[in-house]
Amino acid sequence: MKILVTAFNPFGGEAKNAAEMVLQRLPDRIGDTAICKLSVPTEFEASVRIVEEAIRNEDPNAVLMLGQAAGRAQLTPERVAINVDDARIPDNAGVQLIDRPIFPDAPAAYFSTLPIRPMTAAIQAAGVPAAISNSAGTYVCNHLMYCILDFLREASWVKAGFLHVPITPEQATAENMPSLPIETIEKGVIAALEAIIAADNTDPAAREDAKTEAFVRSILEQHNV
Amino acid sequence: MKILVTAFNPFGGEAKNAAEMVLQRLPDRIGDTAICKLSVPTEFEASVRIVEEAIRNEDPNAVLMLGQAAGRAQLTPERVAINVDDARIPDNAGVQLIDRPIFPDAPAAYFSTLPIRPMTAAIQAAGVPAAISNSAGTYVCNHLMYCILDFLREASWVKAGFLHVPITPEQATAENMPSLPIETIEKGVIAALEAIIAADNTDPAAREDAKTEAFVRSILEQHNV
Amino acid sequence: MKILVTAFNPFGGEAKNAAEMVLQRLPDRIGDTAICKLSVPTEFEASVRIVEEAIRNEDPNAVLMLGQAAGRAQLTPERVAINVDDARIPDNAGVQLIDRPIFPDAPAAYFSTLPIRPMTAAIQAAGVPAAISNSAGTYVCNHLMYCILDFLREASWVKAGFLHVPITPEQATAENMPSLPIETIEKGVIAALEAIIAADNTDPAAREDAKTEAFVRSILEQHNV
Amino acid sequence: MKILVTAFNPFGGEAKNAAEMVLQRLPDRIGDTAICKLSVPTEFEASVRIVEEAIRNEDPNAVLMLGQAAGRAQLTPERVAINVDDARIPDNAGVQLIDRPIFPDAPAAYFSTLPIRPMTAAIQAAGVPAAISNSAGTYVCNHLMYCILDFLREASWVKAGFLHVPITPEQATAENMPSLPIETIEKGVIAALEAIIAADNTDPAAREDAKTEAFVRSILEQHNV
Repeated sequence: MKILVTAFNPFGGEAKNAAEMVLQRLPDRIGDTAICKLSVPTEFEASVRIVEEAIRNEDPNAVLMLGQAAGRAQLTPERVAINVDDARIPDNAGVQLIDRPIFPDAPAAYFSTLPIRPMTAAIQAAGVPAAISNSAGTYVCNHLMYCILDFLREASWVKAGFLHVPITPEQATAENMPSLPIETIEKGVIAALEAIIAADNTDPAAREDAKTEAFVRSILEQHNV
Repeated sequence: MKILVTAFNPFGGEAKNAAEMVLQRLPDRIGDTAICKLSVPTEFEASVRIVEEAIRNEDPNAVLMLGQAAGRAQLTPERVAINVDDARIPDNAGVQLIDRPIFPDAPAAYFSTLPIRPMTAAIQAAGVPAAISNSAGTYVCNHLMYCILDFLREASWVKAGFLHVPITPEQATAENMPSLPIETIEKGVIAALEAIIAADNTDPAAREDAKTEAFVRSILEQHNV
Repeated sequence: MKILVTAFNPFGGEAKNAAEMVLQRLPDRIGDTAICKLSVPTEFEASVRIVEEAIRNEDPNAVLMLGQAAGRAQLTPERVAINVDDARIPDNAGVQLIDRPIFPDAPAAYFSTLPIRPMTAAIQAAGVPAAISNSAGTYVCNHLMYCILDFLREASWVKAGFLHVPITPEQATAENMPSLPIETIEKGVIAALEAIIAADNTDPAAREDAKTEAFVRSILEQHNV
Repeated sequence: MKILVTAFNPFGGEAKNAAEMVLQRLPDRIGDTAICKLSVPTEFEASVRIVEEAIRNEDPNAVLMLGQAAGRAQLTPERVAINVDDARIPDNAGVQLIDRPIFPDAPAAYFSTLPIRPMTAAIQAAGVPAAISNSAGTYVCNHLMYCILDFLREASWVKAGFLHVPITPEQATAENMPSLPIETIEKGVIAALEAIIAADNTDPAAREDAKTEAFVRSILEQHNV
């Protein structure tokens, strides 16, 4: 089994991003599962392109996208991504989008296909504060989550979702904001990954069958059969 | 040099107290300074009696009292203790006091005699969130801080003050509250202790002179001279 | 023009609901527009049935659903309703649903079809705090909003959406929670209604055409044409 | 009976101050009690001078000082003023003081001599959120409260204290901050004034006796008798 974990790089003029810091610390394997790590730019367009390319190259069983949510006290698996970009600040490429649909004719939202309830319970059981979040915001985090779930909408053999993490104490020294050290965040992310692994009960043969079937279906669709 | 560090035990039906947990982890020495550790009950009366006794026995250069403040995101050196008990819940001895002066004819407040600004800067420099707090509340934390500063009001050779710490992630797993792991809190408390040590520039001989002078003065006062 | 405004009755053991209180104060007309007022039970099933029935009977141009959000400081037009029920407390009929899709094969979400950006600007221009919210929660408010948007998915001539309002000062006297008096909330709701009216530029004839077309389409669908 | 009510003018670049707005709306009498209203500059030095002068000229039975506390959701009678200036921003005269005692040899704090518990209960009974606050901050509000209580320390016949009020909805339209309309704040301030009036049970003759006694005492002190 293989899980692709992604994290955004720093944005908004900050030097570090807690999500990227935790990404760099994650092990390369958890049990039998390979952890494939990918840092992505905090850019609407490039982040999606890079994660899609990695999914094509790596063919992972699951994709866990990480982002930093300053102000949150807990690790928060996101329940849903919505089809809108509405940004308070520009992304790292200078793009700022207001109340704009991501894809005009696509669904209003996609639910995470990761097991968010067991992930939340596992993070808490590891002694780390966690709760399900019902909004990933309307900035690049929501954008990436939405686009990847849209990209994978026919690929039932790849689960995907987003997890927001707090900032670290070093980022908050003179700010009255909740924070958790990178070691604590890492413990929570690993617990979440273990919950994803435990929930994956797909027989590898069935997984290959699903991929073949989807491939055939797409060929037929291309030829309007 | 010697510093007495105290911390309250669990209260309000909780199994742990972050202040007591960090106390137990502190080293016995920081450089040349002995760290003398004392756990005290979350009781208005007993806590004061026990800390006063320890001060008499240990003759410390400084007293740093620790308490847990659920809801705070930062380590907060307290600036001031006020002459009032006003409790929302009973203490561990079942005593609940409402709007009652601690000592009817005593000063309205005592300022911490610890270097709270350098302590705050040192905690932040250690990468741990910190800020000066202007209220230690009106429960046992404020009570103990007030009583000990009153007890030491003539003892200029013993500095004393209070530091509130957040709860730990293990205490907050399913709560939407800020928290910091005990290792992070410990790092901050040690930085605060180092700031206390660095600020102590009292010549030991001058310290003994001050004690002798105060002793003579108290004898004279007892004889109404 | 006619707008149907609904509000939930008290829940969670409370005596009043700020949304229902404001509903009762609303005028029967704003300019040429009739305001049709409907109080609904805080129940997953009954609330939807009653609002659908009112839409059938009243044939409004727009539906503004109101709910109370304790803890919010602003009036918050909701952007989106998601296809999930996940309740911390039972509804007034004793039903408590956890992580359950509202309709198993329906879209993950519906966006509000009301002009939420102009509504927010109008509320602010009236001197009342407002912001767009990206989550209506996962309790009866989200449930009703989702179900009514689903019910109206083919009825492009009826706009619908949800607006959360804070609790009132009388509900918060001894609580450290933001609140706004019912007069202030009313001023904001009226400003929101005026923004809905101003945005409605549908020609009545075009509206009738759209209804006829939808009716014919549904007949054809029933006969599998 | 006469009560002097003071309020600060706008500061920090703002156009309005909720405390000053409510001051201007207060009636000139509440029952038999004259309400004497005074707007003061948000300046450490001038505010004290002007309020002291008004106390000398008006000889009030009580002084209620009002200030605006952005971020608070409740009206908060202050329990205590502390002997320190520590400002995040300069005052309106450009003066910024950091960790400086107000008066080097004066008491660490003064408690409000107003009936803060009955005031809080009266505000709540009027349907307005209220709570006792244990910190008036370390800016001009605390400074004025401290200086006036110090000024009146021998004048037992003049009660004095501070009340913080939230910002108004008009000040918070696009901010996620609690607010209360000026009418609601006014209702709470009037309830607080009524509680002050109700608690004043001083016999006018006894009041004159106390003033005479204090005057004689001060003359004797000036002549070192």
